[in-house]
Amino acid sequence: RGLRQVAREEIEVQLDLLTADRTGLPDWALASAGGAVVAHSPTHSPPTTGEGAASRLGALRDRLQGWPPMPAGAVHPLASKLLLSPISQPGACLPLVSSSGWVDIRLARPIIPTAVSYQHIPAAVAHDIRSAPRNLTLLGFRGAPPPPAEGHGYSREGSLGGAAGLSGEGSRAGSADVHPDALGASGALLLGHFTYDAHARSSAAVQTFTLARPPARAAAAPGQQPEHAGAAAAPAIDHIRLVVGSNHGHAGYTCLYRLRMHGTPVGPAGNGAPE
Amino acid sequence: RGLRQVAREEIEVQLDLLTADRTGLPDWALASAGGAVVAHSPTHSPPTTGEGAASRLGALRDRLQGWPPMPAGAVHPLASKLLLSPISQPGACLPLVSSSGWVDIRLARPIIPTAVSYQHIPAAVAHDIRSAPRNLTLLGFRGAPPPPAEGHGYSREGSLGGAAGLSGEGSRAGSADVHPDALGASGALLLGHFTYDAHARSSAAVQTFTLARPPARAAAAPGQQPEHAGAAAAPAIDHIRLVVGSNHGHAGYTCLYRLRMHGTPVGPAGNGAPE
Amino acid sequence: RGLRQVAREEIEVQLDLLTADRTGLPDWALASAGGAVVAHSPTHSPPTTGEGAASRLGALRDRLQGWPPMPAGAVHPLASKLLLSPISQPGACLPLVSSSGWVDIRLARPIIPTAVSYQHIPAAVAHDIRSAPRNLTLLGFRGAPPPPAEGHGYSREGSLGGAAGLSGEGSRAGSADVHPDALGASGALLLGHFTYDAHARSSAAVQTFTLARPPARAAAAPGQQPEHAGAAAAPAIDHIRLVVGSNHGHAGYTCLYRLRMHGTPVGPAGNGAPE
Ligand SMILES: [K+]
Ligand SMILES: [K+]
Ligand SMILES: [K+]
Repeated sequence: RGLRQVAREEIEVQLDLLTADRTGLPDWALASAGGAVVAHSPTHSPPTTGEGAASRLGALRDRLQGWPPMPAGAVHPLASKLLLSPISQPGACLPLVSSSGWVDIRLARPIIPTAVSYQHIPAAVAHDIRSAPRNLTLLGFRGAPPPPAEGHGYSREGSLGGAAGLSGEGSRAGSADVHPDALGASGALLLGHFTYDAHARSSAAVQTFTLARPPARAAAAPGQQPEHAGAAAAPAIDHIRLVVGSNHGHAGYTCLYRLRMHGTPVGPAGNGAPE
Repeated sequence: RGLRQVAREEIEVQLDLLTADRTGLPDWALASAGGAVVAHSPTHSPPTTGEGAASRLGALRDRLQGWPPMPAGAVHPLASKLLLSPISQPGACLPLVSSSGWVDIRLARPIIPTAVSYQHIPAAVAHDIRSAPRNLTLLGFRGAPPPPAEGHGYSREGSLGGAAGLSGEGSRAGSADVHPDALGASGALLLGHFTYDAHARSSAAVQTFTLARPPARAAAAPGQQPEHAGAAAAPAIDHIRLVVGSNHGHAGYTCLYRLRMHGTPVGPAGNGAPE
Repeated sequence: RGLRQVAREEIEVQLDLLTADRTGLPDWALASAGGAVVAHSPTHSPPTTGEGAASRLGALRDRLQGWPPMPAGAVHPLASKLLLSPISQPGACLPLVSSSGWVDIRLARPIIPTAVSYQHIPAAVAHDIRSAPRNLTLLGFRGAPPPPAEGHGYSREGSLGGAAGLSGEGSRAGSADVHPDALGASGALLLGHFTYDAHARSSAAVQTFTLARPPARAAAAPGQQPEHAGAAAAPAIDHIRLVVGSNHGHAGYTCLYRLRMHGTPVGPAGNGAPE
């Protein structure tokens, strides 16, 4: 009976996590609560499915489910649903062209950021795990981020590729090997670099990275320590930019499944829907 | 190996529950099986999302996903999907105006009621747990319920507020402190009062309340014992009314995530879709 | 602490399975990755829901959610979503007329087949478990399967009914009691017979059947051993036919919830969407 009790305790801990979005933390980027993708690098267009082609109804469904023709620079009409909602199934991801890219997100309300979670489908069931992101950089903003400096920016050729190796739960923010021009946005707060392990065991597909407090200003010159906002004045943000520096080996596209943003809300609710 | 066996047994019990809708019981209110919301107190209209406003396709999607303009007295077009289907994510709820309200539900088929389950998103991941319902009353009907007596009825000022304290799995039905006029419907069966604990641990977010058998008639005069239908003639119902007497502190609205109705089906299938 | 460690290990094993689609195997029939239902025996039309009838928006939603009027011989517009996607809830199934039938599926890409998984909703929560399939036969094809020999084929009267008893994880392929004409398709590979246990415990609702290697050719004459493709030349398939020989007792229809196809992909990706 002692055994049974210990087993029950351990099970309950895992069940609590499992039934609390696998993080136990509120997600302030959640689409259904008001989070939204407001800009991103170009998305990959897959071949039309047979179903969509077969009928008008199928075509309409295809459009509603995320594969309309995309004018250049437009926001994918299902971007928020694809990236900022629970994963429904393999394939339901935001597919960015090439092995790098970026996404700008408006949060449901202003927060003091504390952590970020990224989730891909587990390697065990993936059809092609190479499209998972690998090196990621997170920037915070007050107000909508300015466009990235060049083209769709943050290319593999950029210095962000050198951010690899700064990874895991204790990711260091404000590393000096990030070239400030690559961030392409004055006023950005560098929230951290992290590496997503696409080959972790399936139960660890949701990976939460603690952000350094206080966040460093990205505008710091190379070689300098970034400015520190004092702990007493830790800045609130209402937008973030996720920069994909590299993926796990797919040259054609990078599939983004789910980003969650954690922190302490400040001020009145912003874009929120009832919940 | 003895340890391992005990652990496996405990895990299997929890996995069976988890994979059986977390209750192990059929849900006769399930929308996909024919259950439907047929009336409710007014719903709260959130601000239009940026996505919906941005394009015609977005606007159509918004409409399909539940936020069309609502004429007074109309049934929210996604009410059944929002309240009588598995919870998809935070925010996907039926948002009733104010801290109280009511919803009338047609069951998939007639049943002898035995239990009811209510589920909210766990406090650990909620953006605002104050919108969770607190004191609930469940009524049963044969045929569609008549409209509530006054306005949108069952207000905080009504005597149902006094039903607090009758709660939990062993909730008593037919308590004398329910004023029959407050029920607003002759022929109603008072199935029970219960209190939803919005601050329970995440794995206990689905809360099942056993109903007293046989259900008491709500039409009993105050101070009298309600009539008892004999056990041999326990009455079948095909509609229920969920009355929200209070919530966990949000003055603006109450979000209803999922109601499940349990019991023994009687007679032929009614509104059922194939399953 | 030894106890706790053992409990944690056992929990982790189950969590890994649970978070890896409950099989730990990629599913090459998955709709979102390019799998598609391309033909099937007639589907059952349920009564229109009250919601659909109540408004134009409701009717549109009904159409999008799978209940449009169906011309004879047409593919149900949501067949792929219903059968080749994660189960969303009871009722979200492909409902074939009668207690037998068949479905042809194009895989996301060519594979050497190794196993197949079928999943129904658990008996504990089902409204009517009799509609679950019972005896199943799986055929493999290169290219689209030819139409079944007669009517909607594979009726209970056919000799496939005699395949019962060959079941479970170690199902034998190429049994001599399958009359080759009943397969109705030259060039078909008989991948196996299996029996779905609809009354298994809820955590075992996903049942995986290992396929015999190498698959036997269905064209073998009765009483003969089927041809064996050499292990060095195990044939790749890109289409399958699921034949339902019988169900668990419902005369009106058989509900198919989810089929997964496992194996080793060969050659370039075919119908795949990004993932
Ligand atoms: K997602
Ligand atoms: K729901
Ligand atoms: K399904």
